[in-house]
Amino acid sequence: MAKCSKAYDLALSHIREIEGYVPGVQPQDGRWVKLNTNENPYPPSPMVAMAISAELNNLSLYPNPESMPLRNTIAARFDLNVDQIIVGNGSDDILNLLVRTFCDKNESAGTITPNYSLYPVLAGIQGGSFITIPYDREFTLPIEMIVESPANIFFLSSPHAPTGVAYTSKEIADLLERFSGILVVDEAYADFAKETMVALVNQYQNLVITRSLSKSYSLAGLRVGFAFAAPEIINLLDRVRDSYNVNRLSQAGAIAALKDESYYKETIAKVIKTREFCGQELKKRDWFYYPSQANFVFTEPLNGEKKSGPEVAESLYEYLYVRNILVRLLSSSPLTAGFIRISIGDEKQMNILFETIDSWQKNA
Amino acid sequence: MAKCSKAYDLALSHIREIEGYVPGVQPQDGRWVKLNTNENPYPPSPMVAMAISAELNNLSLYPNPESMPLRNTIAARFDLNVDQIIVGNGSDDILNLLVRTFCDKNESAGTITPNYSLYPVLAGIQGGSFITIPYDREFTLPIEMIVESPANIFFLSSPHAPTGVAYTSKEIADLLERFSGILVVDEAYADFAKETMVALVNQYQNLVITRSLSKSYSLAGLRVGFAFAAPEIINLLDRVRDSYNVNRLSQAGAIAALKDESYYKETIAKVIKTREFCGQELKKRDWFYYPSQANFVFTEPLNGEKKSGPEVAESLYEYLYVRNILVRLLSSSPLTAGFIRISIGDEKQMNILFETIDSWQKNA
Repeated sequence: MAKCSKAYDLALSHIREIEGYVPGVQPQDGRWVKLNTNENPYPPSPMVAMAISAELNNLSLYPNPESMPLRNTIAARFDLNVDQIIVGNGSDDILNLLVRTFCDKNESAGTITPNYSLYPVLAGIQGGSFITIPYDREFTLPIEMIVESPANIFFLSSPHAPTGVAYTSKEIADLLERFSGILVVDEAYADFAKETMVALVNQYQNLVITRSLSKSYSLAGLRVGFAFAAPEIINLLDRVRDSYNVNRLSQAGAIAALKDESYYKETIAKVIKTREFCGQELKKRDWFYYPSQANFVFTEPLNGEKKSGPEVAESLYEYLYVRNILVRLLSSSPLTAGFIRISIGDEKQMNILFETIDSWQKNA
Repeated sequence: MAKCSKAYDLALSHIREIEGYVPGVQPQDGRWVKLNTNENPYPPSPMVAMAISAELNNLSLYPNPESMPLRNTIAARFDLNVDQIIVGNGSDDILNLLVRTFCDKNESAGTITPNYSLYPVLAGIQGGSFITIPYDREFTLPIEMIVESPANIFFLSSPHAPTGVAYTSKEIADLLERFSGILVVDEAYADFAKETMVALVNQYQNLVITRSLSKSYSLAGLRVGFAFAAPEIINLLDRVRDSYNVNRLSQAGAIAALKDESYYKETIAKVIKTREFCGQELKKRDWFYYPSQANFVFTEPLNGEKKSGPEVAESLYEYLYVRNILVRLLSSSPLTAGFIRISIGDEKQMNILFETIDSWQKNA
C-alpha cells in the first residue's frame, strides 16, 4: 500500500506486515487444459446436483448450524462418532480453526518444508512464529526433528504436497508416540493413497486429520472439508467455528457425494490409472518423479539437451502456458524449483500435455 | 468438558475459557411458525435457483478466489468501486475478519449493549478485551461515550438488533468525525430501513459497513455477506480472508438475487407492510414496542392482568413454543428481558401469532 492513513495504522502490527495466501491461477474461461490446482477431471456424482436442486426450496432458512446430517453421514462412512468430526467451509476453514486454537504470539506452529504454503500464512495471521524443518531430497519423515521442535501444533501432509509421497501409519504412529504437541495430518489427497491415518484418531488425543471433498469427490467449487480428532479437540475447534460456516447447498451436496460410494470408487480408479500412465510416460522420457499416491505427479523436466533445473522447468511452464496448458511451478524451495507439478487430468488432457512436452523438447 | 487430557491443555488459555456463540433455534422440520431468527418469509428471486442450476456443471473447479463477478455486481448496485468491497461467507465471516485485523490481547473491541451477541464472542476468540457501553431505555446513540472509549474497533448495528431502532446518517457522521478507532456499522437490516450509511464510506477512512443477503434477499441458507470500506481497509481484511471463502453456488446465486431488483423491492415492500400491520396489532393490545426499521419488532408483552416483565415474556414464549410458534427471548439484559423479538413473517403467520397471543392473554 502506497498510502497509509490513520485508519490503516489501527490494524494489528503483524497484520500490516503479512501478505495473504496466493492461490493457484483460476482462469474463469473454458479454454484451458487446467492441471495446476489438483482438481478432479471428472464431474461429481450426479446425485450431488439432484440433492442440491432439492435443497433450493429452503434457501431462505439458515442451515443446520452443526452440519449434523452431514456429520452423521461422515461418521457412518469412516466408522467414527459424530463427536469426533467437525465440518468446514473447505478444509482450509479447519486449518484456520486449528491455528486459532493452538497458535499465537507465544505458541508456535510448524511444518516440514516445502509443504502446503497456507500453513505459514495462517500462523502469520495469528502473529505466531512458524518453525520450518527442511525435507531431505527423498522426502523422508524427519521424526526426530519434529519431536525435538518446540511447535505447539505441527502440520504435515500425507500424501505430501507437492511430491505425492505418502507416509505409513506406522511412521505416523511412531511420531505420535513421541511428539507432545498437536499433530495435524492433512489428508487432502488420502483418497488416492494406499493408506489413511483415520484409525489412529481413536488412539491418539493429539492427532487431527483433515480431509477435503475438493479433489476425490470433484467438489472444489462447493467448499466442503472436515476433520477427525478426539471429542475434546473437536469441542475446542467448535468454539472458534462460525455457527453457519457450511451453507445448505454444500451440506446437501456433500451428503449425496459421500453416499454414492460406487461412483466415488470408479472416479478414484480412473484417476489412479491415469496417474500410472503418466508415470510411464515420464519414465519413457527419463524424467525423475516421486512415487505419487495423490492426484498429481511431481517431476523434474529434461529439455532437448537432457538438462534440468529451475530455468528448464520455467521454460516448460511458459511453453505450456502460452499453449493454454496450466501446470504448477514451485520456485520458492531449492528442492522444488527444478520441478513442475502436474495434476492428473483425463486421458485426453494428458495426451495433449505429453504431445506438447515433446514439441517443447524438440523446439524450445 | 469433564475430562481434560494433555492435548486439550495445549489449546491457548483464552480458548479453553470461552464459550462459543449460541445461534437461535433452527428446527429442521416444517412444523414451525418460525419467527425467531429474522429470516424472510418469502422465497428468494426465482432467478437464484436458475443461476445456481447453471453453475452445477462447474462444481469440480475452484471458485473465483476474489468473488470478482459478484463484487462487480455489488459495485454497480451500490455505486462503489470493487476495491471498496469484500465478500464473505455470510456477514459473520466479515465480522470475524474485522476482529482478527483490529483486536487482540492489546487492542480491545467494543459495542453498545444489548447488541448482536456474536461481537463479544469474536473478541473472546482473539483473547481481546471487550468494552460494553450500556444503552439507555430509549436506545439513543451514546456518541460521547463511544468517542471516549479506548476501543480500537467498535461495533454498532443500525437498524439496531434487537430493537429495530435506526440511526440517521447525520448521527453516524457526527460519531465518525470524533471517534478515532474503526467504526463498524452492521447494516444487516438496512434494506428494511429509511436510510443507509453507504455514502459515508467515500468520506470516512475508519468506517466499515457490513451487509447480508440473509434477510432482505431471503438467502440465509446460502451464506453471503459483504462489507464496504476504504480500499486500504479492504486490502487488510483480504489478507486474513480465506481465498475460497465463498463457493461457486453462493457467488452465482448472490449475483442473480442482486440483479433482480424488482423482485427485491416487492419483497421488501411486503415485509414492511406486515411490519406496520404488526405494529398496529401491538398498539391495539397496548403493548410497548420500539419503532422498527428492521424485519422484526421488539415488544413488551402484557398478560391478562396487564402485567409485564421477564416472567410474563417467558410465559408467552413458552405458550407459543408448545404451539409450534418460535419467537426470540433475550433474557441476558435487563433492558430486554421483559421483551420478545418477533421476526416479520407472512400475513398468515402473523395472524396465527396474534390469535395465539390473545388465547394466552385469556387463558394463561
